[in-house]
Amino acid sequence: MATKRELAALRKAKATKTLDKLTSLAEKVITQAEKLDNPTVEIPIRALSNVAFNKKKHIIEMGSKTQSRTLFNVNMAKRFAQTFLVAKACKELLDAGKTTSIRDLYYMTKHSIGKTSENTFENQGESDPIIEDLEVTINTLREELHLFASNKGSMVGELTLVDAGDTIDARRQGSGGWAVPSIVEDDVIQFKKCDAKFVLLVEKDAVWRRLNEDKFWRKYKCIIIQSGGQPARGVRRLVRRMADELKLPLYVLVDNDPWGLYIYSVIKQGSINLAYESARMAVPKARFLGLSSYDRERYDLPDDSTIMLNNKDVARAKQMMKYPWFAERKWQRELKKMLDSKVKLEIEALSSKGITFISDEYLPRKLKEKDWLV
Amino acid sequence: MATKRELAALRKAKATKTLDKLTSLAEKVITQAEKLDNPTVEIPIRALSNVAFNKKKHIIEMGSKTQSRTLFNVNMAKRFAQTFLVAKACKELLDAGKTTSIRDLYYMTKHSIGKTSENTFENQGESDPIIEDLEVTINTLREELHLFASNKGSMVGELTLVDAGDTIDARRQGSGGWAVPSIVEDDVIQFKKCDAKFVLLVEKDAVWRRLNEDKFWRKYKCIIIQSGGQPARGVRRLVRRMADELKLPLYVLVDNDPWGLYIYSVIKQGSINLAYESARMAVPKARFLGLSSYDRERYDLPDDSTIMLNNKDVARAKQMMKYPWFAERKWQRELKKMLDSKVKLEIEALSSKGITFISDEYLPRKLKEKDWLV
Repeated sequence: MATKRELAALRKAKATKTLDKLTSLAEKVITQAEKLDNPTVEIPIRALSNVAFNKKKHIIEMGSKTQSRTLFNVNMAKRFAQTFLVAKACKELLDAGKTTSIRDLYYMTKHSIGKTSENTFENQGESDPIIEDLEVTINTLREELHLFASNKGSMVGELTLVDAGDTIDARRQGSGGWAVPSIVEDDVIQFKKCDAKFVLLVEKDAVWRRLNEDKFWRKYKCIIIQSGGQPARGVRRLVRRMADELKLPLYVLVDNDPWGLYIYSVIKQGSINLAYESARMAVPKARFLGLSSYDRERYDLPDDSTIMLNNKDVARAKQMMKYPWFAERKWQRELKKMLDSKVKLEIEALSSKGITFISDEYLPRKLKEKDWLV
Repeated sequence: MATKRELAALRKAKATKTLDKLTSLAEKVITQAEKLDNPTVEIPIRALSNVAFNKKKHIIEMGSKTQSRTLFNVNMAKRFAQTFLVAKACKELLDAGKTTSIRDLYYMTKHSIGKTSENTFENQGESDPIIEDLEVTINTLREELHLFASNKGSMVGELTLVDAGDTIDARRQGSGGWAVPSIVEDDVIQFKKCDAKFVLLVEKDAVWRRLNEDKFWRKYKCIIIQSGGQPARGVRRLVRRMADELKLPLYVLVDNDPWGLYIYSVIKQGSINLAYESARMAVPKARFLGLSSYDRERYDLPDDSTIMLNNKDVARAKQMMKYPWFAERKWQRELKKMLDSKVKLEIEALSSKGITFISDEYLPRKLKEKDWLV
């Protein structure tokens, strides 16, 4: 087991690596300035036009198109300066060994320019995209820049881990569980004794609590994580690390509606907006355990446990059917069945068959019959 | 320390008490029916008209007005039946020793009536108020009916507690912390070794993480809890129990805007909507640590760390000035100062003075100078 000193050394080594990237970005610009060239940064484009679905790797990837951001250009000068203001603040964080929120970073970098009424940043809507620019430009994750967004999610199960030097036995986390932090890189979180055979990620806190109360994770030797809707980066990165380092299969349990299926999709192949993160956040082998559009018949769920699809649901399902990553026949069938049946199903609908139906029947049968989609 | 068996016995004793209340409610109605009277339940009214601010206890209280809900009345028959459907489902939960979400309860109690197209409940919007009716009618908390809403919040600090039989040392919960569950009654959560001198509740997760990373709780011997905005019932009940059982003062740190001040107010004296819970959820001695409208001058915060009040902020502040629980001069001054200065301040604004300004200067000085409002 890594000692606190070893962890600190690891943290420092990782910080140094990121600092080197920041420094060489700055040095390149200084060199240009000394040569009296127009200082320029090449920033990869984060838009649908520069995104592609890699069928082989099964992830949504960012392409190689970039845009130049130059200092001596009326339209770009401010953003050029903002880029380096953010880089400077990240350098300070890394130097101090501190992390902070993207909201905090906005306040750290906001100030009025000289004696003018002009501010470096007018609002966080200006600083957030600059952070993403910086991430893609120097090929780093924001967590490596010591920045975090919101955290969400909790976890229990057959795993011991170390979090910031404290040993967390996820088998003994009571009813509340361990709150998943937003930065889960290996200089903060390290996996120790793992007795789990798989990871089950559920979209909903209330369902997770049902499974925890029933000690589902103990009986089926697994780790259960709830994401509170669309998973935060911390949860996505954590399950990815579990897939890579612990070789655990990941099962995803979401509502049977377009939004639930899309949560699975983002976990599996990443999203359009954050395509540059797919390589380190996506879990291409993630298995869709449910709720399937066919579960209503297969598990004999009563009609009154369903909810009618509304117009937004229908439009979203149709839109999703056109995405290349939903092109395979099994997904077209799932979405078509949902549209044909005109109804959606929440995970909680299983409770119409009894409080512990999900723990005692639904999940065990799903797993036994290998009734999932990949 | 209570053994698992003792905890189970306590849980059972509490369940029995609630079951008795449910049973006597049902028996009363059966007696009426046998006498051929119109079965009637007296339900305390949950509205502004039945709410009063108790200046002495410093909590918002529910009055004694009730409304009759009778079976043989076209307008009430459905809700009368719904009341007992919910009571029956809660009895099942208590009998089985299980807890569930209010969403789940909706699915448990929803079914079509006979061969009609009429459902017992059309949506959760119908079942939630019935739960609240039941709570006030038999004078119980929903947690005692084994129901939970959402959970939010995490905690670290100088306290050991037992959660569902697992010992949680809040001094060793890493960067994530212990996730506060939504049911924190003493048959689930029990306090053990406490070395804390106070509790600090912060509205914002990102600020909490700053304090945890800086190990503020270790240096100042306290417990830090983040509520993720308006605290969920679990967090409110937990800090109340800490105030009662551990005799710890509670400090609240929120944004300096009307919404932040109102979060403090709900923690302190309860809310209008849930006035019946104040007696068991409110912490009348809670101290408002900040951000005060005077902090900008007192802590020399730069002008560009402020945000202009918008129309909604102004209207809300003016509305709050009229509430009896904001009538004291100190609160009128706070709100007036906010309105006069025309700006609001987020806790993160402190970062404009440095990343660790909040841990190293702001909070220590606040506590040392006893610069808070009660």
